Amino acid sequence: MRVLSGMRSTGKLHLGNLTALERWVELQNEGNECYFFVADWHALTSHIDSTNNFAGWSLDIVKIYVAAGLDPEKSVIFIQSAVKEHAELFLLFSMLVSVSRLERIPTYKEQKQQINDRDLSSAGFLLYPVLQAADILMYRAHGVPVGEDQVYHIELTREIARRFNNLFGEVFPEPEPILAKVAKLPGTDGRKMSKSYNNFIPIDTDEKQLWKMIAPMMTDPARKRRTDPGDPEKCPVWEYHKAFTHSQEELDWVVNGCKTAGIGCIDCKKLLHKNLSAKLSPIWEKLREFDKNPEEVKKIIKEGNAKARAFAQETMRLVYDAMKFGW
Amino acid sequence: MRVLSGMRSTGKLHLGNLTALERWVELQNEGNECYFFVADWHALTSHIDSTNNFAGWSLDIVKIYVAAGLDPEKSVIFIQSAVKEHAELFLLFSMLVSVSRLERIPTYKEQKQQINDRDLSSAGFLLYPVLQAADILMYRAHGVPVGEDQVYHIELTREIARRFNNLFGEVFPEPEPILAKVAKLPGTDGRKMSKSYNNFIPIDTDEKQLWKMIAPMMTDPARKRRTDPGDPEKCPVWEYHKAFTHSQEELDWVVNGCKTAGIGCIDCKKLLHKNLSAKLSPIWEKLREFDKNPEEVKKIIKEGNAKARAFAQETMRLVYDAMKFGW
Ligand code: SF4
Ligand code: SF4
Repeated sequence: MRVLSGMRSTGKLHLGNLTALERWVELQNEGNECYFFVADWHALTSHIDSTNNFAGWSLDIVKIYVAAGLDPEKSVIFIQSAVKEHAELFLLFSMLVSVSRLERIPTYKEQKQQINDRDLSSAGFLLYPVLQAADILMYRAHGVPVGEDQVYHIELTREIARRFNNLFGEVFPEPEPILAKVAKLPGTDGRKMSKSYNNFIPIDTDEKQLWKMIAPMMTDPARKRRTDPGDPEKCPVWEYHKAFTHSQEELDWVVNGCKTAGIGCIDCKKLLHKNLSAKLSPIWEKLREFDKNPEEVKKIIKEGNAKARAFAQETMRLVYDAMKFGW
Repeated sequence: MRVLSGMRSTGKLHLGNLTALERWVELQNEGNECYFFVADWHALTSHIDSTNNFAGWSLDIVKIYVAAGLDPEKSVIFIQSAVKEHAELFLLFSMLVSVSRLERIPTYKEQKQQINDRDLSSAGFLLYPVLQAADILMYRAHGVPVGEDQVYHIELTREIARRFNNLFGEVFPEPEPILAKVAKLPGTDGRKMSKSYNNFIPIDTDEKQLWKMIAPMMTDPARKRRTDPGDPEKCPVWEYHKAFTHSQEELDWVVNGCKTAGIGCIDCKKLLHKNLSAKLSPIWEKLREFDKNPEEVKKIIKEGNAKARAFAQETMRLVYDAMKFGW
């Protein structure tokens, strides 16, 4: 099975991205043909005012991809804007989908309503799912690991594939979403996790910094004093335990200790810190190796871009052959 | 001054295109730096079901460009889809213009209302003027010869240029429309000229075929008999005379002869045939030379594409440098 997925270059990757990344690593290690990219053109829809940061963010994201277990020998790791063919397929696909179809996509309406600190009025934002379809179908992918909110976009991708195949002959498979049980982590302050609130824990940190972010985390407001019992369900720390503490014994210790005031919040946070450090240490180690050899990640990207480009050019040849069109 | 314009590859060029072409030739011969292209990606918005004809149509259009006086030594003549950078700039520009701005463009609303035999619901059709802006600004053109209906698109192009320059620094000049006094020719049957009515006179024809198209042309219905006087203002033949008969004496002969029944419609059409043949003969001659040497036009296109691509790559370098972005 050929698999494709990507993350947008809109800043540092955080713990919320980690579960998705772990799923990618699994898919790679199961022997699938994998394409993973950094979506820097997609980042333009919300971050047109931060383009000067994109290159650095992209580098950092690829470092984390590899540190978390993506293997450039097994997976093709590349940057979207390095494969110009994505823009070309985007242009062609824009002819195959109606404006009203795009306006009906639930995430489009929702985000336009909910997000107020970004200008989402652009044509590029309306056509975001068309560019996604181009990303996916460029690699004639069969499976696309996505969060639940993206399933509708995969449906649109399937429609575009179908429409193209009907008009011009079979070129594209219809991809299936690969749903990951992604933990919806709250921000460390209990609000929605958001880069503008600065309430997220980046993957690239260290043990000391990690504690500085966990220690002041919001807890159940009922536990004003050490002796007040609490309710984990009202506490963001507990959401993090559910995602990153895997021993049932430790989970029980948190729930019972919290409800009976048998443990303090500091004890609880120390356990989270221990478990997160254990999970992240191997990633940190590899990231520090990259720091010593900054050319290595560039080499990985360069080679990945070349492989992706070769595949993309082959797809575009199939596309133009089918359309009997092009120079 | 750098000048750019293009025609869509949606079939044969006809007499209605000739006046525009003559303006291009003037602009070239005045010593401007000229880029003239065949807009085959644009043709997708209305002719997605005819892509198998695009290559042939594009070849024919370039032949007529050259036969009508465009000189590949002086002007860059190229095919849009051969310069992939247009798609890339289109993608970037789609981030700089709002959906509502595009929906407000008069030609968008008008064409959606008026054209019923084509599906104009696609996102590509809504973004048509964004692709036009990419075509124009790719060559950092200062002047764009257009018909009156396209002036609003040039205004949008200017807005996009301004928006880019404001966000990222001065890269693009704001182009001006170069309005040609284009004759609005009716179809030979008196209806609106349209490829689906087959009521147009192609440029690539010959003296005999031309007469076969002029002879049955619709005239003032009042002239049922040779002795009935007529009114040129009610006659499509007269519209063609106004565009292609340049001697005042001949024009007077038509008007007086028509109004007094001093001439018959056949006499009037013969004059048109004579004048059109005189105008088109040098074009036909060059077209027949191309027939003898079919590789020549391909060579012209290949060289033009290469020149256009080199300029486009330089523009994209400026764009990404300004945005401090890209691989
Ligand atoms: S003990 Fe743990 S789960 Fe309970 S409120 Fe404190 S931090 Fe939250
Ligand atoms: S004489 Fe000429 S202008 Fe008058 S109706 Fe006939 S064709 Fe038309």
